[in-house]
Amino acid sequence: MRHAGDRYAGCTLSHVTVLTESYEMFARAERVIPGGIFGTRSPRFSSFGDFPAFIRSARGSRITDVDGNEYIDFMCGFGPIVLGYNHLAVQEAVRGQEERGGSFTFPGDVTLELAETLVARWDWGDWVMFGKNGSDVTTLSTRIARAHTGRMKLLVAAGAYHGFDPWSVPGGQGVPPAHRSERDEFTWNDAGSVHACFDRNEGDVAAVMLCPIRHDAMHDIELPAAEFLAAVQQRAEAAGALLIVDDIRCGFRLHPSGASHLRFGLRPDLVCFGKAIGNGQPLSLLVGKEALRATAQSLYYTGTHFFAATPMAAALAVLRAYDGEGAYEAMQSAGAMLRDGILAAARRAGACVRFTGPATMPNLLFDDDPKLKRGRAFAAAAAQRGVIFHPRHNWFLSSAHTPEDIAQAVAVAEECFRLVVAGT
Amino acid sequence: MRHAGDRYAGCTLSHVTVLTESYEMFARAERVIPGGIFGTRSPRFSSFGDFPAFIRSARGSRITDVDGNEYIDFMCGFGPIVLGYNHLAVQEAVRGQEERGGSFTFPGDVTLELAETLVARWDWGDWVMFGKNGSDVTTLSTRIARAHTGRMKLLVAAGAYHGFDPWSVPGGQGVPPAHRSERDEFTWNDAGSVHACFDRNEGDVAAVMLCPIRHDAMHDIELPAAEFLAAVQQRAEAAGALLIVDDIRCGFRLHPSGASHLRFGLRPDLVCFGKAIGNGQPLSLLVGKEALRATAQSLYYTGTHFFAATPMAAALAVLRAYDGEGAYEAMQSAGAMLRDGILAAARRAGACVRFTGPATMPNLLFDDDPKLKRGRAFAAAAAQRGVIFHPRHNWFLSSAHTPEDIAQAVAVAEECFRLVVAGT
Repeated sequence: MRHAGDRYAGCTLSHVTVLTESYEMFARAERVIPGGIFGTRSPRFSSFGDFPAFIRSARGSRITDVDGNEYIDFMCGFGPIVLGYNHLAVQEAVRGQEERGGSFTFPGDVTLELAETLVARWDWGDWVMFGKNGSDVTTLSTRIARAHTGRMKLLVAAGAYHGFDPWSVPGGQGVPPAHRSERDEFTWNDAGSVHACFDRNEGDVAAVMLCPIRHDAMHDIELPAAEFLAAVQQRAEAAGALLIVDDIRCGFRLHPSGASHLRFGLRPDLVCFGKAIGNGQPLSLLVGKEALRATAQSLYYTGTHFFAATPMAAALAVLRAYDGEGAYEAMQSAGAMLRDGILAAARRAGACVRFTGPATMPNLLFDDDPKLKRGRAFAAAAAQRGVIFHPRHNWFLSSAHTPEDIAQAVAVAEECFRLVVAGT
Repeated sequence: MRHAGDRYAGCTLSHVTVLTESYEMFARAERVIPGGIFGTRSPRFSSFGDFPAFIRSARGSRITDVDGNEYIDFMCGFGPIVLGYNHLAVQEAVRGQEERGGSFTFPGDVTLELAETLVARWDWGDWVMFGKNGSDVTTLSTRIARAHTGRMKLLVAAGAYHGFDPWSVPGGQGVPPAHRSERDEFTWNDAGSVHACFDRNEGDVAAVMLCPIRHDAMHDIELPAAEFLAAVQQRAEAAGALLIVDDIRCGFRLHPSGASHLRFGLRPDLVCFGKAIGNGQPLSLLVGKEALRATAQSLYYTGTHFFAATPMAAALAVLRAYDGEGAYEAMQSAGAMLRDGILAAARRAGACVRFTGPATMPNLLFDDDPKLKRGRAFAAAAAQRGVIFHPRHNWFLSSAHTPEDIAQAVAVAEECFRLVVAGT
């Protein structure tokens, strides 16, 4: 297995992770799964040979791979882990529901408790529907918007990710071009492009779909400018089009209530949640306004596992813990400490980086690094020292990241910045 | 709450289920979920007022609703429950994985074990990919077929259900018509229509997608005629188009290996599984041929929960139990006993019904009952007596249905047939 010593001859490493078992397993996996591992979970998506391929267990902020290496994990399962892995109260709720049964012919009683809790939680939402993937509810929201308005056009920000369904999947390989029609794009944070997009689709716009922040992979994260959001909100209202917020990645990390649009003053008609709502249990939500209830009810939308009880029991436990344990504040505090620490470490090491985004969803990119060569080297060196920093995707904080975790991660980051600066 | 006495004055009921709590909860649910409950789980989809709305717990073949009524359940969660609810070994596997963590930033070690187990199990499949919903993998299969062949047209049987994604969702409300293009239809069991469909799409066909049996709601189940399957297989091969089997509903119920196409001699390129593979845990699979591996690997396909470890641990336990406990044989035996019993009961009661389909996935329809009036009355009366028989959707047997369950269900069925005959 490659290790950092191969790449940075002369550096004395404080720690080198051995990944024998991970990559022996990966070689076996290549025979039975296309690419060994596909999608964002693949080590090819991060840093092949340096990131672990398979995980044995996790607790709190830490994951342990199949070679026994432990990592402070700043990816939180690509978002869902908002309270830390194996959170006690959530796991108790999961066990309790599984003892009664996790999935029935009819919904579990927990369905009603969760729906009432969610609708009571958010005074801007009047009803909720359930799915498994984030894509289930982003696509459902487009169907409700189109059925409600009788119009077809969906406006989205260029480059924004709204799921893996055919109309949205990046690249669109294997999708008939016609299945990606009825969509137009504006430029993030460019109010003029929003106006132009509405102008050229006048009378046709069913909805505009927007993430609360720009969090495209391999890009700096951009917060929305007030003028940009005002243009989106005002033009959607003027056109009688719906405003859909895709809060799947940001939900529960950008606002104490869990609903990111409140931080930015948006007034959406539909909001999509996923990821963090179940702390690892698969569940997505669409929350909508009263005016859309009849349309939502009229659509055919069903899935074998949509009413599974266990993720709903987990979600209720997540909400209780999120509120009761100061999870939002703990994440903010950990994220702020990480940001200050990373930026100071980069300065001390002489590394030119951009650390963008909200404290709980930061993104690190090196200057003049279009192919992520330095970014990957940094992430590789950090993984070898027991910290998962992703080279191309935003990171995620959880309430389980302790000040000690952050201090350790920052110390590793400084060492890795020095290695990258020395190596380039 | 309505009960059977309202409808069948003069009949002495052996048992009347009280559904106070279920429908009080349903009325509350209507305020926070469009339609109260949406999709196939809604009591509106079965028999409103007579079917339970919410379930508290389940074990083996039985579910218990929020009023405390227990039912022998012949819907098995609409398919996933193949070994009975809360199967001991499966629940142990779920608990064991959850103790280590259910979802990580990278795949759990169980991913490799499951993929290797599946590929070793089926010599017609060389690799596997994972999803949550059945729709995830039916749609993925169309993308692989289109990307691989460079052609766009997908042929399906008219009326067949292949998931809730826009290209396939029944009714297509809220979907731009263009997003449902590049699809053509043939008629189930009509070889001539298969030939005509291939003829009129010559040179354009990427794939034909087929369920192993016709199991459309509100229709008799039809087994495939040999001539029909031969036409599908031969024309697909001659056209260089892929054959995709959608085995999501039938998998693990029609053949001892779990793969239904083997029962009918089909040689598919891609097979979609879902439902029964996790006995309630959300997991779907796409199994494919070597020739498609590179294409499958080249597609962007990722989802937050696709590599969640707990459903994979459950699936491994399901496979062990399915093989080790004679689950297939137990289901066949229970299904055959139910069929014989239902048909004899209907004869004795003078009810004119059609009980179609394989023993483990039967479907009951009354003659001359286009609006399901008698079907719903029968299902309502059975629910009131503690048996869930669905009036419009095929039923599902599990290995947990005991001879005593079947005897009790048949006795209830006979009483309900008599009520329907007396009431019409």
